[in-house]
Amino acid sequence: MSTMHPLFTAYATRQAALATSTNPYAHGIAWISNTYAPLPSARIPLMDQGFLRSDLTYDVISVWDGRFFRLDDHLSRIASSCTKLRMQLPLGRGPLRAKLVEMVARSGLRDAYVEVIVTRGLKGVRGTRAEEHVNALYLFAQPYVWVMPPEVQMAGTGSAVVARTVRRIPPGAVDPTVKNLMWGDFTRGMWEASDRGAQHPVLTDGDGNLTEGSGFNVCVVKGGVVFTPDRGVLEGVTRRSVFDVAGELGVGVRKEVVPVEWCYRADEIFLCTTAGGIMPVTRLDGVVVGDGRVGSVTKRIWDGYWRMHYDERFSFAVEYDDEASRAKL
Amino acid sequence: MSTMHPLFTAYATRQAALATSTNPYAHGIAWISNTYAPLPSARIPLMDQGFLRSDLTYDVISVWDGRFFRLDDHLSRIASSCTKLRMQLPLGRGPLRAKLVEMVARSGLRDAYVEVIVTRGLKGVRGTRAEEHVNALYLFAQPYVWVMPPEVQMAGTGSAVVARTVRRIPPGAVDPTVKNLMWGDFTRGMWEASDRGAQHPVLTDGDGNLTEGSGFNVCVVKGGVVFTPDRGVLEGVTRRSVFDVAGELGVGVRKEVVPVEWCYRADEIFLCTTAGGIMPVTRLDGVVVGDGRVGSVTKRIWDGYWRMHYDERFSFAVEYDDEASRAKL
Repeated sequence: MSTMHPLFTAYATRQAALATSTNPYAHGIAWISNTYAPLPSARIPLMDQGFLRSDLTYDVISVWDGRFFRLDDHLSRIASSCTKLRMQLPLGRGPLRAKLVEMVARSGLRDAYVEVIVTRGLKGVRGTRAEEHVNALYLFAQPYVWVMPPEVQMAGTGSAVVARTVRRIPPGAVDPTVKNLMWGDFTRGMWEASDRGAQHPVLTDGDGNLTEGSGFNVCVVKGGVVFTPDRGVLEGVTRRSVFDVAGELGVGVRKEVVPVEWCYRADEIFLCTTAGGIMPVTRLDGVVVGDGRVGSVTKRIWDGYWRMHYDERFSFAVEYDDEASRAKL
Repeated sequence: MSTMHPLFTAYATRQAALATSTNPYAHGIAWISNTYAPLPSARIPLMDQGFLRSDLTYDVISVWDGRFFRLDDHLSRIASSCTKLRMQLPLGRGPLRAKLVEMVARSGLRDAYVEVIVTRGLKGVRGTRAEEHVNALYLFAQPYVWVMPPEVQMAGTGSAVVARTVRRIPPGAVDPTVKNLMWGDFTRGMWEASDRGAQHPVLTDGDGNLTEGSGFNVCVVKGGVVFTPDRGVLEGVTRRSVFDVAGELGVGVRKEVVPVEWCYRADEIFLCTTAGGIMPVTRLDGVVVGDGRVGSVTKRIWDGYWRMHYDERFSFAVEYDDEASRAKL
């Protein structure tokens, strides 16, 4: 990865600047009930059905080096998720977009993990009609989150297990294309990964096929082609970026049923998510993947993915309105 | 049901008294961070992993006519659920029990729905050890909740569908014996029930067997014997009461795999939960169950279930400390 070193070096410089920020929202900002609050003190109603029934959907968008990445793709997905859950975005799409940009601008955060949560609201679904509900909206931004830290990506020491104690919740029970926070299976998987000395779990569908892991899609590279599951998983926006980059590079992509066995025959494996990007896995179930180093397809996709963050077709600059933060950062 | 009429009449009298209560917690009380708050204004941290990952367990206990019902059984279950999730009860069992009684006493509520929620806390599980987490505890009590309202129980007009658009989350993904709030499948089921003109959904395991519904176990009566699923469901405390009553009545109980087909051949069907008790279903998928009236086994279990609420082996009286509420109620 020719661009990894300079990209992480520039990020470290911005992080150092953030550490000296006097912006009250430098550790995160939340927007709840039309009011901004520092993230650590932000609160939601105990009676929110998003808590009491996990009756919600959400989306995560990144801001990288002062630029929102694929915001409109994320807004399209959450709008679609709301429809599938019989909910409505409490703000129109335009105002929601503007509010997210305003919130990040106010925080001064140049590299941010931005989350939108839409919940059913205060009233339970039982015996009601969808129109009766006043859906709730919670927004927050915090310093960029790494599912796989930069140092692990740099060292090429990403590790995973195929979980054997837990399977993915099937689509017939909970639709995984509606991004949700019912992470019981993923949490079990994370404990198992940890117990087995690995960083990340990848879950099967219980029928011998790959699905996804705790907040990321999975891509398996074999013979120069990228394979990734077509069902039982979130339609990841980061994965869409993988498809875009692969298309530009002339790398083939096959979105289809992926038997779990293919993991063990892979030349390369990488995970992908908004909170961490393209995350190379070089050890699976304690055994090296391919030659044990980050593979050439993964490297080229990694480079292309981060290049997109500066491409105006996919990103735009936030106009930061906080003078203090602008001066400092 | 010989006892239904007097039981609901006495309840209505207590409800009328509650309506005139001046206790500030008459609409509900919450205990969060060592502080009591009226339930509608109670708030939890946005960053709680119970919200952001539904990483929690909970339990619901009833107070009926001023008496806690099977509190120790519920405390045993939540302690076991915490262990399975690698969490710890933030209060010891004795202090938690005392706090629940104190909270109800303070509310003045004679008929209450009492909930205990234990969440992972503020930190995510990824890359951590269980001991690092400071688990959070939220308690609340509100006026008794009826999954099936008294008037529907009285009229014998309870209805359900066997959901055909959604299956139960399998135990291999999320363990249903750990009471959880990942209700995505139940919520889909409730919409389907409503779309089909019924009140409640019952879900299958996707393999042609019954599981449970949105917050309740299911019992099918055939030939005088009660059948109920042995796997893929919560080990309900109310269902345990059904077993206890059935034992006293000499009614046979079989806890085993129950093919969904048995629903359609049943003499009687009832649902059971702490929030509503024994809930007779006389219409399934739009067709009458048995002769379309509440059956004799269901009636006897109904009577026995509510009788237990006054039995000192299963319940104890709350000593209400709110003079105003004591005078009025």
